[in-house]
Amino acid sequence: MNAARNKVNDRISTTKSLLCVGLDSDQNRIPELYRSMERPVLEFNRSVIKATKEHAVAYKINTAFYEARGLEGIQDMQDTLDLLPPDCLSIADAKRADIGNTSRKYAQAFFEHWDFDALTVAPYMGFDSLEPFFAYDQKLIFVLCLTSNSGSADFEEKQLQSGETLYESVLARVQEWDRNGNAGVVIGATKSSQLRDLRRAAPGLFFLIPGVGAQGGSLRDSATLGVDENLQGALINVSRGIIYPDGNFDSVDVFEDSVSRKAEALHDEMLKIF
Amino acid sequence: MNAARNKVNDRISTTKSLLCVGLDSDQNRIPELYRSMERPVLEFNRSVIKATKEHAVAYKINTAFYEARGLEGIQDMQDTLDLLPPDCLSIADAKRADIGNTSRKYAQAFFEHWDFDALTVAPYMGFDSLEPFFAYDQKLIFVLCLTSNSGSADFEEKQLQSGETLYESVLARVQEWDRNGNAGVVIGATKSSQLRDLRRAAPGLFFLIPGVGAQGGSLRDSATLGVDENLQGALINVSRGIIYPDGNFDSVDVFEDSVSRKAEALHDEMLKIF
Repeated sequence: MNAARNKVNDRISTTKSLLCVGLDSDQNRIPELYRSMERPVLEFNRSVIKATKEHAVAYKINTAFYEARGLEGIQDMQDTLDLLPPDCLSIADAKRADIGNTSRKYAQAFFEHWDFDALTVAPYMGFDSLEPFFAYDQKLIFVLCLTSNSGSADFEEKQLQSGETLYESVLARVQEWDRNGNAGVVIGATKSSQLRDLRRAAPGLFFLIPGVGAQGGSLRDSATLGVDENLQGALINVSRGIIYPDGNFDSVDVFEDSVSRKAEALHDEMLKIF
Repeated sequence: MNAARNKVNDRISTTKSLLCVGLDSDQNRIPELYRSMERPVLEFNRSVIKATKEHAVAYKINTAFYEARGLEGIQDMQDTLDLLPPDCLSIADAKRADIGNTSRKYAQAFFEHWDFDALTVAPYMGFDSLEPFFAYDQKLIFVLCLTSNSGSADFEEKQLQSGETLYESVLARVQEWDRNGNAGVVIGATKSSQLRDLRRAAPGLFFLIPGVGAQGGSLRDSATLGVDENLQGALINVSRGIIYPDGNFDSVDVFEDSVSRKAEALHDEMLKIF
């Protein structure tokens, strides 16, 4: 039994939500009112978490947005982790992987030092670059498979001589390598036409599905096609579509209310599939 | 003209060395004598840099080893950057890449906040995941191509329907995308049989060649086959093979002397190709 997987599946069934809130928190884009605070990004994240926690089953911290500000940003990441509701999955969206002895250090960083529940990793370097992550049998590992961006056509969607595409090959290999039941894949929400086949090919893998909202993916399709046979095993991530609602906000309450309504609307859509 | 490229090519020609020293500095593996110091990894790095700077043309900081210790490790990374000789190339070996707006943040982290000269990135997500890095026209971007680990067989070496392997496709696309003359690729030193063909196919790309030493790649082959027609454009990285010499070290001087001899021996081998 996998602690991270159980936690988030329980939460999915309880809340009837698949919502993963992406904390792509950009100091230059958060509402003006936070910028004069002592810890702008941390306070912004505090508001977003407060406003969404009723609807969310997971939170995804996009490490790039924190690393961009160096030590100060990483301090914000660390302190944000402490704000996450303990019954929600915490995901480091870091897309790491390297040769084995280096991947072990990344795994140590995210699973031991920061103690995230889950991590995104990149498959290019193959098995021994991923195995150190899979070795953490109480965590969830999401391997990039078919991403939402246009560049997915450059390599991911290329057909191999075996007849399958690269992303299908990644899906198949991840299933083979998943000896601890802790593997997942990242499938972009803009790829809903392939989602049905991918779910059929990998009924047991956890799917992390970003790309709804700013990137244009369909929420309904992603939810319907992404879940497993127990209506679990899938997370729909929305980042910019929740954390940056339109409007001018003259108080924290008004901002939180606006974010909360965004999350509620997404949750309402998701309820329909249960 | 690219500042990073020119700097390291000048240094290669002046020193007749291709040596990149990999600072994969592991707190649990550094000599005992450093562990009682206030900043063990930083002091260890100071010794390694001092002992190798006559022979090195570049230093590669493997971000995993610093992230593994959280803020304290990243503080060590930041302070190590200040110790690097300004005429050597500073490389963040971070293997980042994500959708465009996220890659922009990683580029900001490594090229603006930390101000590295160069960065390693992963190609899986395609053009728009790499373009934000290539946009920094005074920096060098090394895209993973054919790596030194056994997992390179899982995806990188797979043949595409077009007849080329995935890594050959990556090499070709990186050349197309290199509008600023700031692209490079990572080719493992264990792949010397392919190195000649890759250099012929991409005469203008910078090659970062890790895998000599602990991973078993041939130094002589990597150097001979990796350089461009001006005997520049290639870096041979050695990490564990330099920074962890055998022996018990009862003083900083004895350790530095041992590291220095390792670097000198590698430099002596490289001199032969000039």
